[in-house]
Amino acid sequence: MKGSTIRRYKALAFALVALLPGVAWAAGGGVVGENLLWLAIILMSARLFAPLAEKIGFPAVLGELLLGVALGNLTLFGIQYFDTIAKDPIIAFMAELGVIILMLQIGLETRLADLVKVGGRAARVGVVGIVIPFVLGAFAVGPWLLPGLGTNTYLFLGATLAATSVGITGRVFRDLGQLGTPEARIVLGAAVIDDVLGLVILAVVSGLVQAGTVSVGEVGGIVLNAALFLVGSIVIGRALAPYSSRWLAQLDSGPRMLFAQVLATGLFMAWLAHMAGLAPIIGAFAAGLLFEPLFLKTFETPRIVREVEALLPNDAPGSADSLTARLREALTRHTRHQHEHMLEPIGYFFVPVFFVLTGMQVDLSTLSDPVIVAIALGVTAAAVAGKLLAGFAAGRGVRAWVVGWGMVPRGEVGLIFAMVGKQLGVMSEAMFSVIVIMVILTTLIAPPMLTLLLRKKPHAGKSVGREG
Amino acid sequence: MKGSTIRRYKALAFALVALLPGVAWAAGGGVVGENLLWLAIILMSARLFAPLAEKIGFPAVLGELLLGVALGNLTLFGIQYFDTIAKDPIIAFMAELGVIILMLQIGLETRLADLVKVGGRAARVGVVGIVIPFVLGAFAVGPWLLPGLGTNTYLFLGATLAATSVGITGRVFRDLGQLGTPEARIVLGAAVIDDVLGLVILAVVSGLVQAGTVSVGEVGGIVLNAALFLVGSIVIGRALAPYSSRWLAQLDSGPRMLFAQVLATGLFMAWLAHMAGLAPIIGAFAAGLLFEPLFLKTFETPRIVREVEALLPNDAPGSADSLTARLREALTRHTRHQHEHMLEPIGYFFVPVFFVLTGMQVDLSTLSDPVIVAIALGVTAAAVAGKLLAGFAAGRGVRAWVVGWGMVPRGEVGLIFAMVGKQLGVMSEAMFSVIVIMVILTTLIAPPMLTLLLRKKPHAGKSVGREG
Repeated sequence: MKGSTIRRYKALAFALVALLPGVAWAAGGGVVGENLLWLAIILMSARLFAPLAEKIGFPAVLGELLLGVALGNLTLFGIQYFDTIAKDPIIAFMAELGVIILMLQIGLETRLADLVKVGGRAARVGVVGIVIPFVLGAFAVGPWLLPGLGTNTYLFLGATLAATSVGITGRVFRDLGQLGTPEARIVLGAAVIDDVLGLVILAVVSGLVQAGTVSVGEVGGIVLNAALFLVGSIVIGRALAPYSSRWLAQLDSGPRMLFAQVLATGLFMAWLAHMAGLAPIIGAFAAGLLFEPLFLKTFETPRIVREVEALLPNDAPGSADSLTARLREALTRHTRHQHEHMLEPIGYFFVPVFFVLTGMQVDLSTLSDPVIVAIALGVTAAAVAGKLLAGFAAGRGVRAWVVGWGMVPRGEVGLIFAMVGKQLGVMSEAMFSVIVIMVILTTLIAPPMLTLLLRKKPHAGKSVGREG
Repeated sequence: MKGSTIRRYKALAFALVALLPGVAWAAGGGVVGENLLWLAIILMSARLFAPLAEKIGFPAVLGELLLGVALGNLTLFGIQYFDTIAKDPIIAFMAELGVIILMLQIGLETRLADLVKVGGRAARVGVVGIVIPFVLGAFAVGPWLLPGLGTNTYLFLGATLAATSVGITGRVFRDLGQLGTPEARIVLGAAVIDDVLGLVILAVVSGLVQAGTVSVGEVGGIVLNAALFLVGSIVIGRALAPYSSRWLAQLDSGPRMLFAQVLATGLFMAWLAHMAGLAPIIGAFAAGLLFEPLFLKTFETPRIVREVEALLPNDAPGSADSLTARLREALTRHTRHQHEHMLEPIGYFFVPVFFVLTGMQVDLSTLSDPVIVAIALGVTAAAVAGKLLAGFAAGRGVRAWVVGWGMVPRGEVGLIFAMVGKQLGVMSEAMFSVIVIMVILTTLIAPPMLTLLLRKKPHAGKSVGREG
């Protein structure tokens, strides 16, 4: 081969090197292989644990959480294998995707009008549920149980107690088929408000720590940003959704397009919320509120519905009670929830990953020190009491205890707040341990408490879209 | 606080630090946010491109591949944004999951008995499709078009030309509803055989390069390992599937459990295949072969089916042609494919990620050097000719050209072979460039060629499970 040709090859080869990292994945490295096994294990064992939890009367989510606790603490028995799962970034992303899909589903099963109806109550619950735990943490429980620390530290403890993590509660309501109750709507609305207020509190406290002062403009900016995202995306999204649905259905009226529209919107708004500083799950929930079944009627009916409809005779008018009419009604009901049904399998796959991973974060060895546990129990009591009081702000006609316990789980939001405090240097290691136990306890206690409260007054209908 | 308490806090805090990396994901770092946007973009734009491809008569997969080519080459216009997507390990894992789910679906839609029926033909096609391209590459085209390189290099070129990547062909057959044809079964069977033979060739060639000799024991070990996995997992799996289905349905007869069993088995066998040295997609395909609809009848019928059935009157015997009887038949058909329907949405989500990413690997700047392109065209011609000849080994009664073109795409398998050669130091940069272009061309030409051939003799029925 001539020198010039070789040089040309070399130049080309250099350009190709840029391609290599992108190709490397195809080789299926060891990690990709392990991830497949982990997903299989999480998927299957979550499914095996769920019926056990349900048999003793608890929602499936508790089975998944406890499975996670069990797997995550096998290290205590010298089994390290599952320890690496919780730290794998790919599995972590799958978990993130899981809770985003869950909140998208919950949003789809919630009508915006119903949410607006309980708006005033939700706002009261949200505000009270932020203010009381914050005051309790920063000015009462903190200085009393953990004396001798700085004011800033207590402020951060307060902020952590004020956090709300709606994923777990949403899942419990959904597992028990209670998403349609006013209590569920109030909790969902309050959680959205709390996510905005939580941002404000975090900004204020961080500002006080870093600069000793808070810029009103900055806080205003955060509120404006979040409000703009929420109101803007819902108003614009709902205005656009009927048109975009019609346009997309013209391109492809099949179920793939319907599914892509709903899921891509959910992912996009989760990203948008993240950019606005909010939790991605709030964006996914808002995306779910955009799609009224009415907007999606331009898409094809499911295949089984078309097949059955083709067999049905044309009914004479007035025979509303005939077999054909009743069959048509069942088919219409099924068609209206087609997009929710299509999200179900994705949920079956990813949602357990989130809850098993959440359970894995629970390090039982934190419970081995009685002093820490005692302090943590005190802080937890304040955390629970603050949110239960918020439940009573919901007003008459709803079960205040259900709303209150619905607000209790701090989940990952509490941990995020604590970590910000740690990074700012005001959260002592000791207090961080206490907060971890508080987050664990509020997250694990709420599901069984909610179940007991909700089972007291059984509802007839299961929520829509639970079964295929 | 006392010193001892502080010490205890410290010890605890140290234990907690291990928890932190696992918690960090919850904070939703920048990458997690970006990935959400990317998935939304891939999902939605693949869906928008697919109808365009279908309108001009091509399968959706071609739209996805070309979309990937377009996005991946925006760098030529100075837009770097999409370049990072192709290199992100999380998106890469989603793509891997996509092709695994696709092959699981294809396995579920393939009956093992049908595959066994074409076993002899598939074996002939597989062996001829490995031997001829290998000989052509190693002893004819290589020394002729790229003179002056070592024998080992030509052997590796031959190995690369022998590779078969069934993901793309499987998708084309599926898009066009032709999975039920003998040609599709022959290609699927031959691809499984080729994956084993490809391993053998790679081992032999690598052995020759590294040690100058090949251990018969080692090659025998590879074949034994692969055969043991394939035969063992299918025989054991099919023996166990009815029992495990019955046992799992006793725990929870709902669709979640059915779905979890099928998907977890697919993921598990993809991992197992990976461990046996085979491609994960071969394991996923084998997993699909385990579940005959019969085995899954212990699970509940879908909700819409139960609702409609509850409305139907009990028919008198002998009225096989009545409305009720025909309705029941449609419902039974729907129920039998429930598990396939449930995998559809997961496929809608992940499968496009694989094909868009595959398209993104295509670097159009490789086509700017006429000398390279000329050589690459010669190598591609040999690569195509070798597989087309294999098509004629399928024997009478099937469309040889369809089988042949079905074997043509080299996809990621060809690239993996080339990269092994590169790591062993026998694949020159120049030849690597040529192989990249060959892989690109075989991957992009096969779908339109297959479409043209398959459209010539249209089949009435679309494949099962294409629509929700």
